Amino acid sequence: MMNMQNMMKQAQKLQKQMEKSQAELAATTFTGKSAQDLVVAELTGDKKVVNITFADAVVDPDDVETLQDMTVQALNDALGQIDEATKKSMGAFAGKLPF
Amino acid sequence: MMNMQNMMKQAQKLQKQMEKSQAELAATTFTGKSAQDLVVAELTGDKKVVNITFADAVVDPDDVETLQDMTVQALNDALGQIDEATKKSMGAFAGKLPF
Repeated sequence: MMNMQNMMKQAQKLQKQMEKSQAELAATTFTGKSAQDLVVAELTGDKKVVNITFADAVVDPDDVETLQDMTVQALNDALGQIDEATKKSMGAFAGKLPF
Repeated sequence: MMNMQNMMKQAQKLQKQMEKSQAELAATTFTGKSAQDLVVAELTGDKKVVNITFADAVVDPDDVETLQDMTVQALNDALGQIDEATKKSMGAFAGKLPF
């Protein structure tokens, strides 16, 4: 059975590794797209929006609803990719916590 | 000094409370706005986009750049609010971890 001191060391080591993984994610750009790439959203791994590109075809004052739907789609595509990547990199730590 | 068994119990209790806080956040809608409310973005606390509303005035094929900038602004406004709320609700647990 791991004694208290080793547990503390283990936990602090893990915390450092998690922080490193989080920094790597934050430095990565994820690109989400709507159907037909009409809207493209770029976010960093810490879920900050850095850029959004609208194709001319979708910027139509007579059909704002499609523009809104496509924008939601592209953003959730990128956010979903970030969740996957986060699960992968953080999941590596899940089984190692000392309790 | 807390013995091992109590530490385990404490940690598991905290985990349950954190999960409860995360569920409450996920059930909360946050509204982000650009300048002059031209773009309004609604996200849930688990950072999923549920809706985006573009004012007719900003859906202008001759000025897609402003539309893009305003959209980024509204989204990061909402994402920033979520980060604040998360820090507040999760911060309550930070000092209580048993190591």
